[in-house]
Amino acid sequence: MVIELMKAHASVRDYKEKQLSQEEVSELVEAAQHAATSHFVQAYSIIWVTDPEKRRKLGELSSNAKQMEGAGAVFLMCADYNRLQHAGRLQGQEIVFDRAENLIVAVTDVGLLAQNLALAAESKGYGICYIGGVRNNMEAISELVGLPEGVFPVYGLTVGVPNEANGVKPRLPVEAILHENEYNEAKYETILPEYDSTIEAYYASRGSNQKTATWTQQMADFLRKPRREDLKGILAKKGYHFK
Amino acid sequence: MVIELMKAHASVRDYKEKQLSQEEVSELVEAAQHAATSHFVQAYSIIWVTDPEKRRKLGELSSNAKQMEGAGAVFLMCADYNRLQHAGRLQGQEIVFDRAENLIVAVTDVGLLAQNLALAAESKGYGICYIGGVRNNMEAISELVGLPEGVFPVYGLTVGVPNEANGVKPRLPVEAILHENEYNEAKYETILPEYDSTIEAYYASRGSNQKTATWTQQMADFLRKPRREDLKGILAKKGYHFK
Repeated sequence: MVIELMKAHASVRDYKEKQLSQEEVSELVEAAQHAATSHFVQAYSIIWVTDPEKRRKLGELSSNAKQMEGAGAVFLMCADYNRLQHAGRLQGQEIVFDRAENLIVAVTDVGLLAQNLALAAESKGYGICYIGGVRNNMEAISELVGLPEGVFPVYGLTVGVPNEANGVKPRLPVEAILHENEYNEAKYETILPEYDSTIEAYYASRGSNQKTATWTQQMADFLRKPRREDLKGILAKKGYHFK
Repeated sequence: MVIELMKAHASVRDYKEKQLSQEEVSELVEAAQHAATSHFVQAYSIIWVTDPEKRRKLGELSSNAKQMEGAGAVFLMCADYNRLQHAGRLQGQEIVFDRAENLIVAVTDVGLLAQNLALAAESKGYGICYIGGVRNNMEAISELVGLPEGVFPVYGLTVGVPNEANGVKPRLPVEAILHENEYNEAKYETILPEYDSTIEAYYASRGSNQKTATWTQQMADFLRKPRREDLKGILAKKGYHFK
């Protein structure tokens, strides 16, 4: 059942050695591509990093060396207007993708593609992990795998046979996420402290990596300072000027 | 099978009258929330629009009146740092979300959530359609459902019992999307004209809404001019300054 599969998701960071075959990767990518795409633009590409030396460097550059070297497959999930530039030029037309709208469309297209890919992999018994760390060194990573103008890695995705079983982290309760007709922020006053207790109990009780923390503590700490302040400039160099 | 379900996806815009129940919506949202989320921020909210008058206005504002009035459920899939502001304040901390990184994180979180929700709905026999048109009038829509600072609708999602069966549109071939170790734009020279023939044949042969068009023609035409040029300013008013 699809819903049970979704509810069993936990990130996997430690994998067995088995590498995914070309056939398996093609099957996953093809399924993933059937996600909806804004106006059929399909503004994405996937770099499958198989070369051991590139994987080693990519792992270093994204602060995930062990996981990326050990995974059964390593993908860079990229926003891509380069292919659309080629499409335009075949029609004698330069395309425009320098607005906020274009960035939102591409990041969305990549998201729908990636979640299909992740779930398709999980449906075959693989584990997966998204890696935001590829945004730490976006220029060096772009050079490593030759990403041209219009293409940037939104995140990495590792896939492989799990070598660990992680517990499912309790999400915010549905009523914190779902608002009927009107956004209601007043409810957070009671929901968030309750959720803090849930998360605190979860961290205290889990088998490994126990800690003392609540969700609001983690969030306050994590979002205290700006992160990845070079991104705007790098995206602009890629043609995403966010005008 | 999950992969077969994905490959059967086609957008549905015409629905039967049946409305989704609170239980069904909660089940779908809960499954959706189990998608990965960047550093556990869960930077999303869903507005479930059930009020007939709001649905009528939302349909008008997003240029999708018929579909939104007729659907079994209408959701606004929102990026949300407002809840995280509340989390921070519970800890005596103002959070920062004014960088490019924060926009990418929120749009990604919404994407993974939305694709899980869409697929969970399809697994129960419902049809779905994403609606980018909610970005046409983002301020008026925000006012309609009371979205505060930090919250904006990335897209709508309609769900319902299909009243039409649409054919699956042929996607770009896997080799157009998937690059091994190095991005290869040279291959587009042959792949794109071949794909144009595929799409031309698809449009000419389908049962309804036949047309004469290739993919590169559609893309060149669609991306000739900037779109939604007010977005940057509206996002800034919401606190997404993209610094």
